[in-house]
Amino acid sequence: MATQFDPPSGTRDLLAADVEKRERAFGVIRSVFIRYGFEPLQTPAFERLDVLLGKYGEDSDKLIFKILRRGEHEASGEADLALRYDHTVPLARVAAAYGSQLPSPYKRYALGPVWRADRPGKGRYREFVQCDLDTLGSVSVLADAEALCAQHDALAELGLGTFTIELNSRRVLAGLLEAFGVPDDLGPSVLITLDKLDKLRPDAVVGELTGRGLAEGTAGELVTAMTAPDAVDRIRKALQSSEQGAAGLDEVDSVLALVAPQVPAGRIAFTPRLVRGLSYYTGPIWEVIAPGGAGSIGSGGRYDHLIAQLGGPDTPATGSSLGVERILLLLPDGGGGGRGRLDVAVTVMGEEFAAASFGFAAAVRAAGLRASVYLGSSTKLGRQLRWASDTGARWCLIYGGAEEESGTVTVRDLLSREQAAVPIGEVGGYLARAAAEGS
Amino acid sequence: MATQFDPPSGTRDLLAADVEKRERAFGVIRSVFIRYGFEPLQTPAFERLDVLLGKYGEDSDKLIFKILRRGEHEASGEADLALRYDHTVPLARVAAAYGSQLPSPYKRYALGPVWRADRPGKGRYREFVQCDLDTLGSVSVLADAEALCAQHDALAELGLGTFTIELNSRRVLAGLLEAFGVPDDLGPSVLITLDKLDKLRPDAVVGELTGRGLAEGTAGELVTAMTAPDAVDRIRKALQSSEQGAAGLDEVDSVLALVAPQVPAGRIAFTPRLVRGLSYYTGPIWEVIAPGGAGSIGSGGRYDHLIAQLGGPDTPATGSSLGVERILLLLPDGGGGGRGRLDVAVTVMGEEFAAASFGFAAAVRAAGLRASVYLGSSTKLGRQLRWASDTGARWCLIYGGAEEESGTVTVRDLLSREQAAVPIGEVGGYLARAAAEGS
Repeated sequence: MATQFDPPSGTRDLLAADVEKRERAFGVIRSVFIRYGFEPLQTPAFERLDVLLGKYGEDSDKLIFKILRRGEHEASGEADLALRYDHTVPLARVAAAYGSQLPSPYKRYALGPVWRADRPGKGRYREFVQCDLDTLGSVSVLADAEALCAQHDALAELGLGTFTIELNSRRVLAGLLEAFGVPDDLGPSVLITLDKLDKLRPDAVVGELTGRGLAEGTAGELVTAMTAPDAVDRIRKALQSSEQGAAGLDEVDSVLALVAPQVPAGRIAFTPRLVRGLSYYTGPIWEVIAPGGAGSIGSGGRYDHLIAQLGGPDTPATGSSLGVERILLLLPDGGGGGRGRLDVAVTVMGEEFAAASFGFAAAVRAAGLRASVYLGSSTKLGRQLRWASDTGARWCLIYGGAEEESGTVTVRDLLSREQAAVPIGEVGGYLARAAAEGS
Repeated sequence: MATQFDPPSGTRDLLAADVEKRERAFGVIRSVFIRYGFEPLQTPAFERLDVLLGKYGEDSDKLIFKILRRGEHEASGEADLALRYDHTVPLARVAAAYGSQLPSPYKRYALGPVWRADRPGKGRYREFVQCDLDTLGSVSVLADAEALCAQHDALAELGLGTFTIELNSRRVLAGLLEAFGVPDDLGPSVLITLDKLDKLRPDAVVGELTGRGLAEGTAGELVTAMTAPDAVDRIRKALQSSEQGAAGLDEVDSVLALVAPQVPAGRIAFTPRLVRGLSYYTGPIWEVIAPGGAGSIGSGGRYDHLIAQLGGPDTPATGSSLGVERILLLLPDGGGGGRGRLDVAVTVMGEEFAAASFGFAAAVRAAGLRASVYLGSSTKLGRQLRWASDTGARWCLIYGGAEEESGTVTVRDLLSREQAAVPIGEVGGYLARAAAEGS
């Protein structure tokens, strides 16, 4: 049940373990993208409303968070700004604004939150991170293959071993319609229906196709060709009858050949059924399917006219996007998140020992470990050891009257429960060595 | 002049060099905070409007970016959400929401953007990063000293060598008013005026004090004591006549003693004049002054009742905040930002060599270096070498007909202009070794 202290509907407070898990994953993704020569771009959280409106379609416009004008204009109830809805429209604006100051081609990645006023649901948030990489200014299929490989490598380095990549080309789809004699005006709706072949039975798809006005014979031939055991061979053959189709097939085969040394065979396959909803793609398109039927976790493709449509310069473009929120759900917890907040917890056995204990914590930090003194008011050892254990620390330092007299610090290993008396001044070095041995 | 492609007023597009510089600095800050046992907290970019309104005072409420209600409610022109204005109110909400699920004490840092509809100016943005650390649930002066030391260490590790820290206590200020017989009702306004002693001449401050209703004799004594060459000694003596003053002085001296082993002498000083505008502080307060008269770059203090006032539980609290945007202006450029986008640029001397070149780039990346193939359409070596040099790459790989015949790749060192013929298959290893020697 929502309380007055919950974050707004569809958003989350990320406590330490969540932040750490996310940052680790983002770090992996970033380092892969950088290795491919993509550079970061960060645009503001909000854009002028007119930059966003009308770019995503009417339904999506309703999901844009609009910001009220301020000052004397607030009473008007009008909005002049809006929260970022994706990273692509801001990219188009940046390409228009900076033009030749940007490298050519401009290879950039964007990793940051976007906001959509969607109905919140399981795994669907109103604030979520999108992770895109895009290359503006290259018509080369090498750029498409690079976008795909960078995405593949990121997923592989994150430890998602068993995902698969479905690859197609918009030209293959155009060729398919031509080869099977689908009337031009039915093309888009036929493609949308064909995309359902991964979910619906073939006869249901035939039914939907004829419902949309396609001749029953054509619908049957098309679906049979695409669902036969040798579907890919049949489609390859059919495509040769269309100029577009043959060119699309070349495109697909070029990508397959380029990525072959890096992407294990069986992890990527030519998938003639793949359409991808968005109509702006113009060349190769692909989708990454998660292990265990968790659905799509990434996608990409060439979109040569979109940047101009979005208000940017007329430049060819290709890119890919990772479904990071979904990917995060598939990653195991643990790692840094499970290692606790501290390496070394330092007791404070009374006000007279506070300065010394504070100094030991500093010495331990200078040795590269995480340390903190006890900040509570109890001087009972039991209470402080409980705190030490709560922090997840491996070691606890104890310094009281006995230690002061002997000029040592008691170092307690909270795992083995062994204790050692370490001379003051050697505590940092002692623990640095112990940590190095333990890791 | 603003164009239609500029980001909204008061916000910035951060291109690669900016992002890299910022991320490097944030990385240093985070690692110091983590070493002190502070854990990350990320709250949503927006909160419910009622969570924010009335928490910052009337003037600040006007600077809150409000988000219009959506769907059928949009036409009402009302707002229900608002962009985060700072990290403290969200912290209070999180403390209320998660209560005993949080560690005790709860030591958290927050590093992320906040939004304020302030008039934009030099170094003043509407979207800017705030970097806070706070400890909830400890009344110990150790927690104050920790907040101060963590801030100090972060600035030192960022390379800001010559900053200074002014330290005071709200109790010292209360004691000061008592010791000099300032009437209770004049207290707050007298403190606000005294705080101007770092900017105004003493007689101007006396004038302002009497203007606010303080007796001329009292005003003169107070300002004389605080501006004399032996001001600190005089104030220390005067404070002994007040119980509050003596307790405040103890507090200041405890902090000074605790931080002494870490904070070089001369970098921190008891500063009786320091008031800090915000009235919610209850104990030690401090401000960090940048080198070269650039003003305040950090601050902190104890605020034992604020979390409850902001809607959270009644818990003691202390913390510090870094003025990151200002600090970033003081940091030198360069480092990673200056090292270019690539280590290795791989030419593509024709379509027939594309797959091989693509593979060399992959091999170089597998060796841990940043690499990309040429994505343009020219097959002229000169054009491609120009591109290679633009990327900032140290090496350029050339693979054409001659190389294919000899089974080698030409590795050109763009710095020394030397070339080597490296057998295919050894390119990754060769460049990894060269990079290791060069660094």
